[in-house]
Amino acid sequence: MMSAAYMGQERVDGASSGNRGLAYGDGLFETLRVHDGMLPLWPQHLARLCAGAQRLAIPLPEPAFIEAQIAALLEGVEAGVLKLLLTRGDGGRGYAPPSDALPYWQLSLHPLPPTPAAAGLRLHVCDTRLAIQPALAGLKHCNRLEQVLARTEVEQAGCDEGLMLDTNGQVVSATAANVLVLRDGHWLTPSVAHCGVAGVLRGLLLAQGLANVAEMRLADLASADALALCNAVRGILPVAVLAGQSWPANTAVFDLKARLAMAYPMFNALGGDA
Amino acid sequence: MMSAAYMGQERVDGASSGNRGLAYGDGLFETLRVHDGMLPLWPQHLARLCAGAQRLAIPLPEPAFIEAQIAALLEGVEAGVLKLLLTRGDGGRGYAPPSDALPYWQLSLHPLPPTPAAAGLRLHVCDTRLAIQPALAGLKHCNRLEQVLARTEVEQAGCDEGLMLDTNGQVVSATAANVLVLRDGHWLTPSVAHCGVAGVLRGLLLAQGLANVAEMRLADLASADALALCNAVRGILPVAVLAGQSWPANTAVFDLKARLAMAYPMFNALGGDA
Repeated sequence: MMSAAYMGQERVDGASSGNRGLAYGDGLFETLRVHDGMLPLWPQHLARLCAGAQRLAIPLPEPAFIEAQIAALLEGVEAGVLKLLLTRGDGGRGYAPPSDALPYWQLSLHPLPPTPAAAGLRLHVCDTRLAIQPALAGLKHCNRLEQVLARTEVEQAGCDEGLMLDTNGQVVSATAANVLVLRDGHWLTPSVAHCGVAGVLRGLLLAQGLANVAEMRLADLASADALALCNAVRGILPVAVLAGQSWPANTAVFDLKARLAMAYPMFNALGGDA
Repeated sequence: MMSAAYMGQERVDGASSGNRGLAYGDGLFETLRVHDGMLPLWPQHLARLCAGAQRLAIPLPEPAFIEAQIAALLEGVEAGVLKLLLTRGDGGRGYAPPSDALPYWQLSLHPLPPTPAAAGLRLHVCDTRLAIQPALAGLKHCNRLEQVLARTEVEQAGCDEGLMLDTNGQVVSATAANVLVLRDGHWLTPSVAHCGVAGVLRGLLLAQGLANVAEMRLADLASADALALCNAVRGILPVAVLAGQSWPANTAVFDLKARLAMAYPMFNALGGDA
């Protein structure tokens, strides 16, 4: 794994023992698809990172400097996953953020995830619920114990991914992807105003009018015409099984994938029908 | 700051870029008062750490080995604060914990916090709420963005600490201490079954019958005879001001401190009436 770490614009060996990311998960991250040596969704990821840094008041390093370091790391790399982690750096009295924090950030390159089964994903309904926390909802922050617990359930159930509800019983997302539900020819996706991550690909689908936000409970999914997951690394992934129910392949999923692949050819390469 | 880091029983330089503590806050911590070169509340802190590690399925290093490393670090140290941080270590596919995780842990020594004002603490009522999450409630885990946001409010308000309610409006705790409320001669403390940390000193007071668990809302505090905070580093701290209301010094606070100091003399040294 290639990686590089920085405090502000200075290269460092790694996170210190006093790093607030390590102590409190006091940070944000982005996981980006590398395609043809480029990051086709970089503007969207950077926008989310900036918005998150603003909400948490974490100073963001100069984007042009970040971009130059990413370009250097991606030299000679065709495909993969780039992870950018940003924390508030060191210091402060306990939880109190330091007034002069120098942000810590690191870049790391990872292989593409394995190609999922062509038939579609098997989803476990997780017992672990997402807590209602509007102050952090939508952000891709580093407080992810709920997802770690939920993903542990998925592994134990022998499934591919997990569906997560919030503590009020509303459907929110998968552990590492947003949810898409087809009903009467329209794609719907749950709100992330109370919890969950505002996925970059979900944002793209909403902005293009290809999906709309709707509330839904687990029982509502039984009557859906199709289910899919989406994220910015793996694109659109059809769901085959959830809560004992099976869905056959639905052409609407492939239509959505095809439309997305017109603009982002990388999403043809993974997802079950490559 | 003296510190030492380990993977399992092997000494390492620090956390790697793939440490799950850094990525997800996938860990636990304990903050212990050092007194006369000893850790008087070590059994209680270790018990909470073990319980947390079990709930999160983080492998715990051999306690005897941890104790030996702590003893070495504390050599020649009279007083201070020892922080123990434990994470799930490196690896795994995304949120999925690795099946063979080697835990990462670090010890660090810090100075005692400043002595608080003798008149008592001024508390800010935080806008940041604690999310209801029974799966993580009580644990001293490393997902602490809520506390970071709340503590930022406290600093901006120029107060000493902050009172945090949960998203249902129940009083839970301060940002880094539990809450004690005196009513009709009895000390009450909110439940931490839905959110909040099961503080070591709070646990001691409950076990000795010096306090009882009770539900309370912000409006209920106005009629309290006295308020105090408690944690295992600072002991019992009287509260002087909350939400525009002042409380004069109450002998019950000093009685509780005195009773605690019979067993733990370190709690005489800090807290406003030393």
